Amino acid sequence: MSNINQDDLSSFPIGVFDSGMGGLTVLSALMDRLPHENMLYLGDTARLPYGTKSPGTVSRYALQAAAKLVERKVKMLVIACNTATASALDDLRKAWPDLPIFGVVGPGAQAACTTTRNGSIAVIATESTIRGGAYQRAIKEINPDAAVTGHACSLFVPLTEEGWMDGPIVEAVARRYLGALFDCDGAALEPMDDGQHGGNRKCLVPDCLVLGCTHFPPLAPTIRKVLGNEVAIVDSAATTAGAVENELARLGLLNSQSGPGEAHFMTTDDEARFARIGSLFLGRELSPRQVELVNL
Amino acid sequence: MSNINQDDLSSFPIGVFDSGMGGLTVLSALMDRLPHENMLYLGDTARLPYGTKSPGTVSRYALQAAAKLVERKVKMLVIACNTATASALDDLRKAWPDLPIFGVVGPGAQAACTTTRNGSIAVIATESTIRGGAYQRAIKEINPDAAVTGHACSLFVPLTEEGWMDGPIVEAVARRYLGALFDCDGAALEPMDDGQHGGNRKCLVPDCLVLGCTHFPPLAPTIRKVLGNEVAIVDSAATTAGAVENELARLGLLNSQSGPGEAHFMTTDDEARFARIGSLFLGRELSPRQVELVNL
Repeated sequence: MSNINQDDLSSFPIGVFDSGMGGLTVLSALMDRLPHENMLYLGDTARLPYGTKSPGTVSRYALQAAAKLVERKVKMLVIACNTATASALDDLRKAWPDLPIFGVVGPGAQAACTTTRNGSIAVIATESTIRGGAYQRAIKEINPDAAVTGHACSLFVPLTEEGWMDGPIVEAVARRYLGALFDCDGAALEPMDDGQHGGNRKCLVPDCLVLGCTHFPPLAPTIRKVLGNEVAIVDSAATTAGAVENELARLGLLNSQSGPGEAHFMTTDDEARFARIGSLFLGRELSPRQVELVNL
Repeated sequence: MSNINQDDLSSFPIGVFDSGMGGLTVLSALMDRLPHENMLYLGDTARLPYGTKSPGTVSRYALQAAAKLVERKVKMLVIACNTATASALDDLRKAWPDLPIFGVVGPGAQAACTTTRNGSIAVIATESTIRGGAYQRAIKEINPDAAVTGHACSLFVPLTEEGWMDGPIVEAVARRYLGALFDCDGAALEPMDDGQHGGNRKCLVPDCLVLGCTHFPPLAPTIRKVLGNEVAIVDSAATTAGAVENELARLGLLNSQSGPGEAHFMTTDDEARFARIGSLFLGRELSPRQVELVNL
C-alpha cells in the first residue's frame, strides 16, 4: 500500500469476512458506529458452517476469503466469525503483515471481563471454537482469576439460518444446551485457596454469558427468557466496532466523506437466499441486487 | 476400463459418495445386501451441507468427489445423497459415460409408487432437493396420476449430525414440519375429473411419506410417533441396494470372492468426528483407523 495516498486509502472499504450470514450482526454494529465508512462483506455460504470443521480446513478457507477481499482493496480486515478468528487470525496476520486485521474473539473476551461482577463467565459458541479454547484463553489473558466454562451450541447456527429465532422449539433447545451451565452441577468452580480445583470448592454460578458465535445474537431474547435477568448477555459486535473505530482513528484512516458509506456484499452461493436470510441478521433490508456471486 | 479383465473389475469396490455421513445409511443397506462386495465411501464433510446450496455449486462438488473415487478405481458409482443426485446425476453420467452410475432419487420414487395405496405421496427432503422438484418429477414419471407434495425439513440434517435422533425437541421439530402435510390444509389435492386442480376437489391425505434425504432414516421412529401408523414411511436405501445388485448381476460384475468384502472410508475433514458420528448412521462401529483424510 506504500504507493497509495493516505486520502485515497481512507476511502477504501473495511473488508468484513464471515463463513456465512452471522457476521452481518457484526457488520450491522460497524455500520451503526461508523456510518461514513464503505463496507465490503464476504460470506462464504457455499462452505458454511465452519463451526463443525477442523482448524486446518477453516484456516485454509479463511486465507482464500481474505485474499479475495485484499484483491478488491480494503484498508482493514475484520474477521466477523469466531470460528475463523480462533483458527486463522495468526495465519492471516502472517500472510498480510501490513494490513490491520481484527478478530471478534479478543473484543468479545474484553466485553465479558468488563461485564462480570463475580468473575465467573460462561461462553457458548460452535464446537470448533469451544474445543480450540480461544475464548477461554483470551479471557484468562485479560483476567487470570476469571473462572470460564465453555459449551458448544451447534444447533443454534442452523436454527437461525432457518429463520427460527424464537418460539417453543428454540426455547427447548436453549434450555437443553444452557440448563447445566447455570446450576452448580455444570457451573464453573471457584479455585480453592491453593489454586487447585477439587474437594469441597464453592460453586460459582456464572453471571455473564458470552455469545461466542456471530449467529447467536438474534437468539438473545429467547436466551434471556430461559436464563432470567440475573445473567448478563454480551456479544462481540459492539466491542469489535469500537475497537475498529479506535484503530482507524489512530492510523488516520477514518473516511472523511460526509455522506453515508456504501455497503457491497459478496457470497459464494445463492444471492437470493443471502439477501433474504441476511436481512434478518443485518436488521436492514438487503436486496439481491446488492449481492454479488463470487468463487473462492 | 477396456484393458481390464472382467474378473479383476468385479473385485473393484463400489464407490459411494455423499456430502457427509447421511449416505452411510445407504452404504449400510448395500453392505447388508451385498456382503461380498468391497466398498469405497467418500463423505465431503468439509463442505456439507449440500442441501442449502445451489444446484450449480452442488454439481461442481459432486464432479470433484466422483473424480476422486474414479481415480481410486471403482466398478460402479452410487450417489448416496439426494441433493447431489437431483443436481448432478446427469452431469456425472456425461463425464463418465462408461461407468454405471446410480442415484438415490429414482429408487426412492420407485419405493414410494410401490407402497402407496391411494396415490397420494408426501416427500420430505432438503431445501435444494424440494425446490429442484426431482422427486416430484421422478414419481410422476412412474405414476402420472400420483399426487405429490414436497416439503423442506432443513433442520433434520443438523439435528441428526448433532446426534439428536429422538426426544421431545426432535418430536416438536417433526410436528412443526410435518403437521400441515397430513391434514387437508396442506395435503395433496386430488385432481378433478377433468384433470385440473381447483374448485371443490376432494382432500386426499398422503398415505406414504418418502424420506428424501439420507440423513432422515435415523429419525424414522420419531416421525412414526408423530404421524401414527396410518402413513407408510419409505426411504431409498433398500431399493437402491436392490437396484445396484440387479445391475451388477446384469453386467456380470458381482464379486466372486467368498469372504466378506472390505470397506474403506474417505472424508474431507476430521477423521475422528467422521468415525464417531458415522457409526450412528452406519449402525456399525467405525474406527478412525478405517478413515482417510482426503482433499478435493
